[in-house]
Amino acid sequence: MADCTELEWAIQVLVNNFDKYSSRCCCRKPRRISKKDFRKMLSCELNHMLTDTGNRRAADKLICDLDENKDGRISFEEYWTLIGGIASPIAHIIRQQEQSVKHTK
Amino acid sequence: MADCTELEWAIQVLVNNFDKYSSRCCCRKPRRISKKDFRKMLSCELNHMLTDTGNRRAADKLICDLDENKDGRISFEEYWTLIGGIASPIAHIIRQQEQSVKHTK
Repeated sequence: MADCTELEWAIQVLVNNFDKYSSRCCCRKPRRISKKDFRKMLSCELNHMLTDTGNRRAADKLICDLDENKDGRISFEEYWTLIGGIASPIAHIIRQQEQSVKHTK
Repeated sequence: MADCTELEWAIQVLVNNFDKYSSRCCCRKPRRISKKDFRKMLSCELNHMLTDTGNRRAADKLICDLDENKDGRISFEEYWTLIGGIASPIAHIIRQQEQSVKHTK
């Protein structure tokens, strides 16, 4: 997808990032991320977004809540929901920052 | 977030994109995207990813399935799940393309 929109590029980054941290435990099963690798991903790839321990604790809780089938490995859909769970409060903070910048202009 | 990782930048693109197409129907309620604006977003922002009608029909079905509270407006969480629903099959296609490229080298 040489020419793609910014949104398509961003989605592809999230997909490639899943591939980077996921692995196949056997050839028939789809790729998944181990909880250990997911935490490694959080600290390597989301170290600015997850700065304070509050966010980190929220991410940890999300990981435990979200491993729906309790197999200790995270599917693409669980990964995507987890990132959404992290993005959603961040979306709120970004909007507040932008509004406070608008009011100070 | 001047210095951020590629993944953080991609998440911010998805968050900003939600803001771009969402609006507030009244000041107390969180911002949401109307179905009309969501379809407009699909055709403007995901026109390469949603090329064939199959993907487009899948996206339409997703919109109808996902408007959980049937208020005709899509929350951030519903928006995020919708994009994940679109990304997930794409993730599969991207991997197949990469594997077929690897085998031809």
